[in-house]
Amino acid sequence: MGALSPTLDATFFALSDPKRRGILDRLGRGPATLSELAGPSGLTLNGIKKHVGILELAGLVETEKVGRVRECRLGSATTLGEAGEWIEAHRRAWEGRLDRFGRFVERAP
Amino acid sequence: MGALSPTLDATFFALSDPKRRGILDRLGRGPATLSELAGPSGLTLNGIKKHVGILELAGLVETEKVGRVRECRLGSATTLGEAGEWIEAHRRAWEGRLDRFGRFVERAP
Repeated sequence: MGALSPTLDATFFALSDPKRRGILDRLGRGPATLSELAGPSGLTLNGIKKHVGILELAGLVETEKVGRVRECRLGSATTLGEAGEWIEAHRRAWEGRLDRFGRFVERAP
Repeated sequence: MGALSPTLDATFFALSDPKRRGILDRLGRGPATLSELAGPSGLTLNGIKKHVGILELAGLVETEKVGRVRECRLGSATTLGEAGEWIEAHRRAWEGRLDRFGRFVERAP
């Protein structure tokens, strides 16, 4: 079930950092420039660029040069959807397995 | 929305590697020793130990010393549930925002 997937690798890795999840929270309220993202994050502009680059590689963020600044916005919701589907499929399989084990224990003499 | 969460950091990081997702797939079919996990994975026993350690830190896998071997099984489904909830909440917010933008564009003169 999707064990080999460069998309999942990139998405889960991008989501594994609190600063990057914070950037997604911020962009959920609307687009922002790199400097606007750097402001409240406590990161340098270079730090923000690195994190935005990782989110962009995963397709979670898109950026566009507008005049002298780079504007960032949320990318495709599909990327997040695929990661959600992987988790949901495994959670169901996981709970199903535990349920079957529970019934086996109940039936045991 | 959960931007600062060491649990989410550890879970998403653990899921970001195809070998580790493969270990979860395998343990979904039942418990296995470290050697049994190493066999089909193409990893050394030390490589498997490292990956299992990362999954264990995230709570996705539990291990127990049984005689001379270490047995591995799936951990709590709650850990996976929390990561799934984070993704689902963001996916909904994300799609809602795109819907509102779509309606705005449709209404624009």
